[in-house]
Amino acid sequence: MAVPPSTHPRRLLPLFLGLFQGALLLFFTLFITYDEPSAQAEDTNLVANQVYSTFPFFQDIQVMLVVGLGLLLTFLPHYGFSALTHNFLLLNFSMQWALVLQGLLHHFHHGQIHLDLHRLLISEFAAVTVLISVGAILGRASPCQLLIMAACEIPAYLASEWVIVTCLGVLDVGGTITIHVFSCYFGLGVSKALFGAMQQPLHPKGTPTPRSDLMSLVGTLILWVFWPSFVAVLCHPGDAQHRAILNTLLAMSASAITTVVASSLLERDGKLSPGHLQNGSLAGGVAIGVVADMAMPPVAALALGSLSAVVCVLGFRFLTPLLGRKLTLHDQCGIHNLHGLPGILGAAASVVAVLVAPEDTSGPHPSQLSPAGGNASEAAGLAVAVGASLLAGLLTGAALRLPCLARPPERLCFDDSLYFKIQDQAESPGPDSGAEEGALALKE
Amino acid sequence: MAVPPSTHPRRLLPLFLGLFQGALLLFFTLFITYDEPSAQAEDTNLVANQVYSTFPFFQDIQVMLVVGLGLLLTFLPHYGFSALTHNFLLLNFSMQWALVLQGLLHHFHHGQIHLDLHRLLISEFAAVTVLISVGAILGRASPCQLLIMAACEIPAYLASEWVIVTCLGVLDVGGTITIHVFSCYFGLGVSKALFGAMQQPLHPKGTPTPRSDLMSLVGTLILWVFWPSFVAVLCHPGDAQHRAILNTLLAMSASAITTVVASSLLERDGKLSPGHLQNGSLAGGVAIGVVADMAMPPVAALALGSLSAVVCVLGFRFLTPLLGRKLTLHDQCGIHNLHGLPGILGAAASVVAVLVAPEDTSGPHPSQLSPAGGNASEAAGLAVAVGASLLAGLLTGAALRLPCLARPPERLCFDDSLYFKIQDQAESPGPDSGAEEGALALKE
Amino acid sequence: MAVPPSTHPRRLLPLFLGLFQGALLLFFTLFITYDEPSAQAEDTNLVANQVYSTFPFFQDIQVMLVVGLGLLLTFLPHYGFSALTHNFLLLNFSMQWALVLQGLLHHFHHGQIHLDLHRLLISEFAAVTVLISVGAILGRASPCQLLIMAACEIPAYLASEWVIVTCLGVLDVGGTITIHVFSCYFGLGVSKALFGAMQQPLHPKGTPTPRSDLMSLVGTLILWVFWPSFVAVLCHPGDAQHRAILNTLLAMSASAITTVVASSLLERDGKLSPGHLQNGSLAGGVAIGVVADMAMPPVAALALGSLSAVVCVLGFRFLTPLLGRKLTLHDQCGIHNLHGLPGILGAAASVVAVLVAPEDTSGPHPSQLSPAGGNASEAAGLAVAVGASLLAGLLTGAALRLPCLARPPERLCFDDSLYFKIQDQAESPGPDSGAEEGALALKE
Repeated sequence: MAVPPSTHPRRLLPLFLGLFQGALLLFFTLFITYDEPSAQAEDTNLVANQVYSTFPFFQDIQVMLVVGLGLLLTFLPHYGFSALTHNFLLLNFSMQWALVLQGLLHHFHHGQIHLDLHRLLISEFAAVTVLISVGAILGRASPCQLLIMAACEIPAYLASEWVIVTCLGVLDVGGTITIHVFSCYFGLGVSKALFGAMQQPLHPKGTPTPRSDLMSLVGTLILWVFWPSFVAVLCHPGDAQHRAILNTLLAMSASAITTVVASSLLERDGKLSPGHLQNGSLAGGVAIGVVADMAMPPVAALALGSLSAVVCVLGFRFLTPLLGRKLTLHDQCGIHNLHGLPGILGAAASVVAVLVAPEDTSGPHPSQLSPAGGNASEAAGLAVAVGASLLAGLLTGAALRLPCLARPPERLCFDDSLYFKIQDQAESPGPDSGAEEGALALKE
Repeated sequence: MAVPPSTHPRRLLPLFLGLFQGALLLFFTLFITYDEPSAQAEDTNLVANQVYSTFPFFQDIQVMLVVGLGLLLTFLPHYGFSALTHNFLLLNFSMQWALVLQGLLHHFHHGQIHLDLHRLLISEFAAVTVLISVGAILGRASPCQLLIMAACEIPAYLASEWVIVTCLGVLDVGGTITIHVFSCYFGLGVSKALFGAMQQPLHPKGTPTPRSDLMSLVGTLILWVFWPSFVAVLCHPGDAQHRAILNTLLAMSASAITTVVASSLLERDGKLSPGHLQNGSLAGGVAIGVVADMAMPPVAALALGSLSAVVCVLGFRFLTPLLGRKLTLHDQCGIHNLHGLPGILGAAASVVAVLVAPEDTSGPHPSQLSPAGGNASEAAGLAVAVGASLLAGLLTGAALRLPCLARPPERLCFDDSLYFKIQDQAESPGPDSGAEEGALALKE
Repeated sequence: MAVPPSTHPRRLLPLFLGLFQGALLLFFTLFITYDEPSAQAEDTNLVANQVYSTFPFFQDIQVMLVVGLGLLLTFLPHYGFSALTHNFLLLNFSMQWALVLQGLLHHFHHGQIHLDLHRLLISEFAAVTVLISVGAILGRASPCQLLIMAACEIPAYLASEWVIVTCLGVLDVGGTITIHVFSCYFGLGVSKALFGAMQQPLHPKGTPTPRSDLMSLVGTLILWVFWPSFVAVLCHPGDAQHRAILNTLLAMSASAITTVVASSLLERDGKLSPGHLQNGSLAGGVAIGVVADMAMPPVAALALGSLSAVVCVLGFRFLTPLLGRKLTLHDQCGIHNLHGLPGILGAAASVVAVLVAPEDTSGPHPSQLSPAGGNASEAAGLAVAVGASLLAGLLTGAALRLPCLARPPERLCFDDSLYFKIQDQAESPGPDSGAEEGALALKE
């Protein structure tokens, strides 16, 4: 813990962000431009129609990520401000960083990169992976560690997504495999490497209160409402997009009801667990992504939504405690239950869907056109997502143990007042805790 | 209260919901399909345009029902999580149930029911009736009772709506009569039959706190903002829809201001009542629905909005206490003031509007084409809505008194901890209350 | 303070609002009508497309103003209900008042004013100025004073906007100069004239709590998400609107990150200030408005967003305390830092943008066509906005000191219970405070 004063962890944050922002300005100056203004009236109409057909979806997704996901993470009663702010900061950082990397990788034509709303949207999708992975280590990592994690995760995601979509030909409009499965195992890898074999005792500030559970549920509901926009925005306009919206609505509606059934059956006294509701209601949205635009009967969406909710609640009830005991794997928000298990279920469903789809009525799903055969490529895509993300996550987590990125001491975890000028009135931390924080601020 | 253990009320919930979800899967497997993919480019454009013209409205309505209405119901400080969750659960259950019934009733062609966004929207409208009716008994009924109520209300609504719209030819784009008036008197009927002549004393947990009032007001504001989408979504595109949006905006703006005037005048010291604001601001939206798309001067929308706010505030101030004393009628959220009185006012306005509308400039309002004459059919529609809903509500409320659906005892009402694994820290319920709950859990 | 009973300040509110609503009904009866229904099918399509292209933007802006801005103002822990309600009331009042004045001024053709969605939107923009200005005196003025302020500010805004846009030819799609700069200096003028040279000591209820800071941050995030709609709604469809959306997104993303950098560097222990985050993240949206639709390289939007966040945080850290000490200028929400300084920065950027814009590639920006030359007119517009608003604000503030509009006594400021039937349980105000309030209610 004896870190030299020049690398005070709270000083690293503005240093790192400031340098990044400066480099971004330079990069934009050199390479980024807008499309040429359209000279003709038809082109103007075309651009206008593109804006009207994409922008409402884009706004819905922004609400999901900034407000919905942010509120969902406020279930820790003394860490709400941090959760909301870090989520917001990471979204912006990751989106900008993905914009740079995607620009360099894919769109380097004639020395200029043309920016449009669609490209921003693609970068936003990349940023989602970071926001999900953070859930595994929420409350125990410093903002600087989170930013380093984001800096590592974005290129890993882009590489994995390139292999899965471009090489293997998997079409995954809702990001079930490319986003949810990838980010889940990346986050778990980071958590494992960062915390090692350390048993995480129950932290006194790690328990939700009725009020923080309520705010978190509001976040869930916002995510639940706008999820169809997330799944459908990249679909082909017309039937495929219409189907994606309907399938997502059906899956999420089934998830909501099945979560209540499963939670009520699994708890001994029949009471519902807030955590199950906050996560299980969304499991259908995770699972449906990879098959949402395929021509399948509506009942498949309902069944997938129900199954994924069951799997999610079972995961919370049995798997998370088991992984904690056996593998000392720490998963603060239960991302494995919300993103990992339903994601794998969705991938399995896509394999089945490709197998049973009749030749003529199925939509133009590219994976069927891939040489290796549709179902094989979906399975391979899943393997890539799990393997690459675990490896990248473990390496990233190891990097986060660098002494200069000092993690907050256990006693000061889950507390807004460590990084924000906020006075926690509800529960005064006691004299020696304040002294410890003071010592941290002075020493490091 | 001596209920055999096999019918423990907390066990009934997953049993009922699980069976329903299984039956839904079966029903979908047998009957529900999507439209055939459109083969031609023009059709694809048509579908895309339908999605773009309906989906933003649909999302607005989802936000209203899931987030806005949910938050509005969180005014009970210890019952916020339950209010939000039950609202969410009932929306999904009722929507699926309405989908099944509407499919069976109206759309049974060639053994297959074609599902699209418009049909989901229609089912969502049916579900709104349940969410409104619940307000009469909020906090005093078990989730299982609420689900049984929903199961009874949806078919009653579909029958009443069929009579009013199809038989009587009343056009009610915003659901003033078919949704608001119907659901209000259904809820009051349930309340009367369920609680009988029992005087409801002031419950210690039945009083809002500043914080719960604030959350509830946020819900009101979300409803206020998106209400025009609710009224306009089913209008004919073009002038009628434009008019419906404008009329709703004007009516709700007038309601907001008039509520402040009325509340301030009626309270002795001139202070505003939070409950008046939370409800009165929305009264204009309830009343305008049935006339929103008609060709009437803008001042009519303003006047209707003002009047309905006055009626709503007067109802809270005088009528609700009177009904409570004289009829021992219990109306927890004051749905009679927000949905009943403004709904009747709107119906009266539609009679006047049809009477005074000049022949040529009025829009294509079908009620004028009905043989019985427009104003007669609107009045008959109102009578049907009130009568049918009261009757159905009374019958439903009687069914909810079945011993196996044991209502929570009075002491444990308005408390999240009865149905959720939430620890109420703010106000510890005392030792004997906990013992009573334990006894309930063991006995029932 | 010896005000005759007939002008009890709590009685003035319903009197004033009731008279206004009555006058509005009369005005609408005499002058306001809808457009004639379109007779032909093409016209119907045209109207439908106009609705679909404007209404989603309009709804986004409503969410911003009613929910986002309302929540942002709830950072005072005992004044949340008042902040939300007064914001809502002022929006409606100002919008209706602007509708009347704009109707009289601009649209008086043939004795009838045709109302449509675009005209409502323009009125809503006018109302925004009031909502911003209120921030300077939040918590210390009575609702009646706020309404009188709104009544004065709307005509002043319309006059100033007419000079800037119509006479000087400044195009300001996002309202940087016409709305943000104007309303900021108007609010500061009101504050100066209303409070005079009185030193405002730190009020015991003037400090945010973690919970109120969290709610306020949620408001910021809602504003942040929907800001592009506010900037782009009045742009020409097509490239200009697309550019405005992208520029706003880039500017706000840069603001979010730079705010963290600046706040962390300026606070001694590296902790972030909630106030900086709540405001600085939005500074880019204020500054970008006047140049958002111009053909400039994307890096300019990023740089402007970063700079405005720096300016905003510096303002909070140094300028606001300085102005408080030297000029006894009271600015409760720091509107000078969020709207004033970034607004001036944006105006300066627009002067530069017009200077360096190449003749051929720049968009059809009218200010270049104005006889006085583009950059001169932008500077003149800024001068008009600052000068006219300060003067009008000072006069309005002086009017608010009329004895009949008695301002709440200092002890009862920042407290919901003065104007609402809300019991503040968290902090009982003590016996003599209650007595003082009672005396106020009786005497005045």
